[in-house]
Formats: sequence, C-alpha cells, structure tokens
Amino acid sequence: MDTLSLQNPLFATYVIAATLMILKAVSMSWLTVVRMMQVKGGFRSPEDLRKTPLNPAPDPRQLEPDERVERIRRIQMNDLENLPFFLVAGFLFVLTDPSLWLARVLLYGYVVSRLLHFAAYVTAQTHDTRATLWTVGSLILVFMTGWALVAALSA
Amino acid sequence: MDTLSLQNPLFATYVIAATLMILKAVSMSWLTVVRMMQVKGGFRSPEDLRKTPLNPAPDPRQLEPDERVERIRRIQMNDLENLPFFLVAGFLFVLTDPSLWLARVLLYGYVVSRLLHFAAYVTAQTHDTRATLWTVGSLILVFMTGWALVAALSA
Amino acid sequence: MDTLSLQNPLFATYVIAATLMILKAVSMSWLTVVRMMQVKGGFRSPEDLRKTPLNPAPDPRQLEPDERVERIRRIQMNDLENLPFFLVAGFLFVLTDPSLWLARVLLYGYVVSRLLHFAAYVTAQTHDTRATLWTVGSLILVFMTGWALVAALSA
Repeated sequence: MDTLSLQNPLFATYVIAATLMILKAVSMSWLTVVRMMQVKGGFRSPEDLRKTPLNPAPDPRQLEPDERVERIRRIQMNDLENLPFFLVAGFLFVLTDPSLWLARVLLYGYVVSRLLHFAAYVTAQTHDTRATLWTVGSLILVFMTGWALVAALSA
Repeated sequence: MDTLSLQNPLFATYVIAATLMILKAVSMSWLTVVRMMQVKGGFRSPEDLRKTPLNPAPDPRQLEPDERVERIRRIQMNDLENLPFFLVAGFLFVLTDPSLWLARVLLYGYVVSRLLHFAAYVTAQTHDTRATLWTVGSLILVFMTGWALVAALSA
Repeated sequence: MDTLSLQNPLFATYVIAATLMILKAVSMSWLTVVRMMQVKGGFRSPEDLRKTPLNPAPDPRQLEPDERVERIRRIQMNDLENLPFFLVAGFLFVLTDPSLWLARVLLYGYVVSRLLHFAAYVTAQTHDTRATLWTVGSLILVFMTGWALVAALSA
C-alpha cells in the first residue's frame, strides 16, 4: 500500500493530527483579530491609526499593547515554537512505520496536550500548569524526532 | 505515476507554490539585513555595539528600534504565523488528489495573496487593505486544511 | 526503491539533517526554561507572579526582561525564521533526486552552519561572525529552494 495514502491508517492518523494542529495555529490569528476588534486596539503599525471604515475613530492609544490581545499573541508565539516542528517530526515518525497504537497515542496525545495548553493559557492558569502541559507535548515531540533519527542512522 | 514525482502536475504545482513562498520568507531576512545596513541600526544584541569592520563607528542608538527595520520584522512575523502551515497544508491537500484546476487556483491564489499582502504592508497601506489580503490567504489555508482533514476522516 | 524509504540514502540524509535541526530548535525552548529557572525571572504573563511550588517567592521584577533569557529567545526567533523553511526546502530538494554527495554537503553543511551560529550567538561573538554563519545557512537554503523550483518548472 502507498505510504502516503489516506488508506494507510498510520498516515491518516498523521493527517488528522497535523490538520487539527494547523487549524489550531490559524485560529490564534483569527482570535487575535477578534480581540483587536473587541478592544479596538492592540495594533502595531503607524498606518493603523488612519481613519478607515473598520477604524472610524482612530486614537493613538490603539497602538499600545493590550493584555487581552497580547495574551493570544504569546499563545501564538508558543505555537510557532512548537507546531512547525511537530508537523515535520510527526511526518518522519510515521514514515518509520511504527505500530499504529503508538502513533495514535503520540500524535493524538500531542494534539490533546496542545489543546489543554491553550485552555490553561487563555484562562490564565498558573505558570506551573501551563509548563506541565507544554512539557508533555515537548517530550512527545523529542521522542518522535529521536525515534526518526535513530531509524535513519541505523537503516 | 509516483505521487511525489515532479511529472505529477499536482505535485509540481505544490512545489512551485511552496518554493516561491520559501523564497519570499527568506527574502524578508535579507530585506531586514539590507535595511539594518541602510539605517546602520535596528540591532538587538549588546555585542552588536562592538567595533567591527561592518560597524566601524558603534553608537548606543543602534540598539533602538528603527521603524524601517521593524516594519520588515512585522511582515516577517506575519509570514512565520502563516507560511509554515501553508507549506504543510498544501502538501497534504495535493496528496488527497484534488482536481488540478482547484489545486492551481488555491495554491497560486495563496501565493498571489501573500505577495499582495507584502506589497500593501511594505508601502504602509491601510490596515483594512492589509487585513483583506491576509484574510484571502488565511481562508485558502483553512479550506485546504479542512479538506485534508475531511478526506482523512472519511478514508 | 521507495523515495521516502530510509533505505534510500538521499532520504536518510534528509531525515538525519531534519531531525537534528528539530532537536536543535526544541533545545532552545528547554534552554529558555533552564535560564528562567536559574535567574528566577524573564517571565511574560501576569499570572506567572502567582505563588506556586515552582515559584514560592514571587516578585514583580520577575516579569522584567532578563538578558540571559532574552538571548536564548533571540536565538530561538532566528531558528523560527529559518528552520521551518529548511525542513520543507530540504525535503523538496531530495525529491528532485540530486547526487548524494551534493545532498550531504548542503544538508549537513546547513546543520553545521546553524550549530556554529548558535555557538557564536550564545557566547556573544561579534555581529559580523554571527552574520557570516547565518549567511552560509541562508545561501544553502536559497540554493536548495531555487533548485527545486527550477526542477518543478522544467519537469
């Protein structure tokens, strides 16, 4: 069977986990937009103070950081530090033909850890809680990457 | 025919769109370098104030943000929030074997939307213009990702 | 032979280079954590000042930027601007079936350039040294990307 076929349950597992994580990452952009519209601020460029249909009453304070917007930007930054690497590591991991249950545990476990990390961050849980959830995902990422490296070195 | 062969017009379409976007992303780094050299500033690290062949007359103001440099950094940040996910989503999308015209419309449409976004941002068009162009690309990204997710779930 | 098989020395070369770069990127997150624990600061969210087992004596100064932590964050930011694009460009490059020695020179050369860039940045070498090492990696990235683009356009 073709490795990259969706009929291959290993690859389908990867595609489901990867697309969920991409949608999660893109949602952070949209959530930033929503919060910028709610607080009518958190902008970053000088030209954002021009009067437009979407910003009929510009105010210099719109360029100041707003914690409601900055929180989503921090979450997004955390995504950028993790998800692109997960997307490639997960792909290389399934190409080593691991057992299906292990792939499901690791790939879906990663997805769950990132969704819980988001929930903890957006509701301002303690640093300890957030760090624990990040750690789970990061260890899964390191494990899958190391697994693929060892497989390539011993092939 | 091999799915990942450049003889496969679907995959060739992906490779063209993906490499153009990678070159675009890397260009932002080079443009940042060019502008830092033009304004002789916009540096970020304390050691950048050491006297070197490339910086013969260091000045503490070189560590202050410079809007000409910061603008490119904001554009690059926007790339980092979007392009890595496009690169993976586009790949998974073409693996679902969509029609060639749809793949061309979406992948090349994305490329065009990002080039226009750059043009609007670098020339400081209004936030509305920039946001509209970003939205086109983001919707294409969401569509391709959702398409691949549905294909994987229904395989 | 299957293109994406680890028995294919071209693909194995890519997997080794890619996984090393992913581990490098993830290490920056862990190094940030280590330094935040060492300086007991460099935090970013208001809730990080809550008293917890990992932060028994909170202090408002913990939210101020700390250069030891910020340095790693700048290195990590440089990774985010480069590595995700390398991971995709290297993949597309090996799919064009280049000679094995060229693939090894470029892919392992990139890995070495990034490890040296890290060594130069973390020990605060001059901007010129850091920039030179970054340039080597960036030129390799541009070359592999342009190579894949030309191959796709002429297929």
